[in-house]
Amino acid sequence: MSNTLHIGVAGLGTVGSAVVQILQQQADLLAARVGRPLRVTAVSARNKGTDRDFSMADVNWYDDALSLAAAPEVDMVVELIGGSEGIAKSLCETALANGKHVVTANKALIAQHGVALAQSAEHHNSALLFEAAVAGGIPILKAMREGFAGNNIRHVIGILNGTCNFILDQMKLTGRDFSDVLAEAQALGYAEADPTFDVDGIDTAHKLAILTSLAFGTAVSFDDVHIEGIRQISAMDIQQADELGYNIKLLGISRLTEHGIEQRVHPCMIKQDQPMALIPDAYNAVELEGDAVGKSLLQGRGAGGGPTASAVIADIIDIARGYKVPAFGIPAVKLKPLSPAVMNHHEGAYYIRLSVLDVPGVLAAVSSILFEEGVSLESCIQHGRAPGETVPLAMITHLTQEQRMKKALARIEKLENITEVPHMIRIETL
Amino acid sequence: MSNTLHIGVAGLGTVGSAVVQILQQQADLLAARVGRPLRVTAVSARNKGTDRDFSMADVNWYDDALSLAAAPEVDMVVELIGGSEGIAKSLCETALANGKHVVTANKALIAQHGVALAQSAEHHNSALLFEAAVAGGIPILKAMREGFAGNNIRHVIGILNGTCNFILDQMKLTGRDFSDVLAEAQALGYAEADPTFDVDGIDTAHKLAILTSLAFGTAVSFDDVHIEGIRQISAMDIQQADELGYNIKLLGISRLTEHGIEQRVHPCMIKQDQPMALIPDAYNAVELEGDAVGKSLLQGRGAGGGPTASAVIADIIDIARGYKVPAFGIPAVKLKPLSPAVMNHHEGAYYIRLSVLDVPGVLAAVSSILFEEGVSLESCIQHGRAPGETVPLAMITHLTQEQRMKKALARIEKLENITEVPHMIRIETL
Repeated sequence: MSNTLHIGVAGLGTVGSAVVQILQQQADLLAARVGRPLRVTAVSARNKGTDRDFSMADVNWYDDALSLAAAPEVDMVVELIGGSEGIAKSLCETALANGKHVVTANKALIAQHGVALAQSAEHHNSALLFEAAVAGGIPILKAMREGFAGNNIRHVIGILNGTCNFILDQMKLTGRDFSDVLAEAQALGYAEADPTFDVDGIDTAHKLAILTSLAFGTAVSFDDVHIEGIRQISAMDIQQADELGYNIKLLGISRLTEHGIEQRVHPCMIKQDQPMALIPDAYNAVELEGDAVGKSLLQGRGAGGGPTASAVIADIIDIARGYKVPAFGIPAVKLKPLSPAVMNHHEGAYYIRLSVLDVPGVLAAVSSILFEEGVSLESCIQHGRAPGETVPLAMITHLTQEQRMKKALARIEKLENITEVPHMIRIETL
Repeated sequence: MSNTLHIGVAGLGTVGSAVVQILQQQADLLAARVGRPLRVTAVSARNKGTDRDFSMADVNWYDDALSLAAAPEVDMVVELIGGSEGIAKSLCETALANGKHVVTANKALIAQHGVALAQSAEHHNSALLFEAAVAGGIPILKAMREGFAGNNIRHVIGILNGTCNFILDQMKLTGRDFSDVLAEAQALGYAEADPTFDVDGIDTAHKLAILTSLAFGTAVSFDDVHIEGIRQISAMDIQQADELGYNIKLLGISRLTEHGIEQRVHPCMIKQDQPMALIPDAYNAVELEGDAVGKSLLQGRGAGGGPTASAVIADIIDIARGYKVPAFGIPAVKLKPLSPAVMNHHEGAYYIRLSVLDVPGVLAAVSSILFEEGVSLESCIQHGRAPGETVPLAMITHLTQEQRMKKALARIEKLENITEVPHMIRIETL
């Protein structure tokens, strides 16, 4: 048929294979929904010889992904190679320059070069979509770009990395420590051999930078994201949080404040009666608040072949149906520069855990520093006594400014009966 | 500007006023997102004299909504009058026949006449959208039509009526009985003076019928929805459910089974560790399962001016951006007739509450009937004893067929020591 959409898929890992499989196996269903056939006409991957879960009949093979991006039989390129630079970037640039539509699941690429790519797409009158880049199967970008487009967004908060959520969930369920659970997650294939991108919060930050742009009409600004990962979270933190009625989650938070837009990724303590505190396993969730709609929460699987392919195919369908909405909700040239709020201006409550020698006067010394820096306490936990030995001392503060908190902690760290660097986790009220 | 979208709004209650207000106050933001101005050029309502929260400058007034639907200065009609027949229906028909786009929040109208209206829209090359008709501010129809369009949907389950959720939540929190909490909800304006549509499940059924069509590509079939409301739920049911680890919610459930498509609205017991069991207050939530994406849950405010207006404006924006997707995901003429699964074929677990005279042999008589009908018990609660008096007896069954359950209950009801009609609530495993 002449109105068939011809698709080239670059990258045939778990997600790429699932995408081609669904496009082939559900061809009739999809054609009925779209009103025109969708056909995979070209693929590219590292090894031609690999056994595939789909048919290669009538599908052209390209050893070189860049040639696929310029191939005349391709209307749309689906980029599933990954990485913010190199081949993935060149592939998308080439495809757009050749007037082809681009669908990608590549959060690093969009977080770093999304605005330039969107400008190129608009210049060439092509579409660029990347639903799968954020929160896997959850159609959160579509929801923000379209479903909530009548709102001024106030904040967007998400559990955006399934690996971290799995690890924190397992730590909570089993009482084990981070390194132990990470090793298990690696053995199960839930975490990479090099887990840096996940556990150090970089992956979450990539996704958050994209969400921020859609929420506030600002140019993607990954470099302004404050990033802390979950390596420092101990079994004791999780247990003490539980005692206080909190769970610990790695959140990405983007919020309009009087000082500018906060973009921060760090472990948070969340009250256990909040839905966000209960997101289990490797699930993702995103909450946003709009001035008209109020708060809305979307949750689902954030990774894996099926959920990611579901998002990729939704983008393909949108483009095949002829829907051309700017990638970031407004034309890329109209995105405003982001005016970042620095962390020192952040206001919140804090959980602090100290290791102190159990000698008279320690609590008084700590308390007076907090008092002098203007930090007031909501509660304090010290279990039992062990005169002369090291004991944990946990405290929760009232709302205070980050810079006060940091100044107080720097002074507390220097007290002679403090035996470890003080440990701090921000409390997030949803 | 020549490419301005001219909007006529019929019905200026809470939602209509909020829609016009947002369109006027956020005109610049919306124009930036849409790429063209959106302007309210005509309105119609019952009383011209009422004070409005928006500007009537340059807005034409129509005493007769039908004239607005045919007015040459209107490109799109927003129907916010309500009701499945009468003026709301004529208004939409007239607008579509005049080649105008239609956006409506009217679930009764779409549940009863949605397919005919969609056919008319397609015939006249206009758009018909009704995001606000289901689950208020949650963009669930868009998600199903677009975000999850790469999936075969297996089920969709929702808390779709905020009034019922508020009542059940309050009953749980306060231990009070239905009629008491209903009176409070009416005083607070959460429930209508005539609460029939809400508490008897009809409103939920309207919404479910629409969701079913989008999920399975079938013609909307409201008449095939099995409907039970929440009037029979007592404080004792809620308390016993709690003891057993369940909350009671009114759910709308649409599911593909071997017998056809089940569409049912009734109170359900849901395990308290399920997110759906914890949806508070007047919130709505919808879970769907797709073959690629797995399970996804969307929650948010299901009613009220702001959330409903948010959904209405999202539809207006889609149409203004030129996105023309069939109202039910595929062209209306291609919707298949729904093949309904009758309730007798439903398979599930059941909670049963009996009022029995505490005399020897009652439990044996009940048990043997259940055994003879092939219903086996998972658990049984009987608190204390009160020889010769009426006591409650609660049971939970294993999976069984509805027709077996009904036959057993009919026989149990006739036992001489059963003092009330047996009470049954279906248990839903999410």
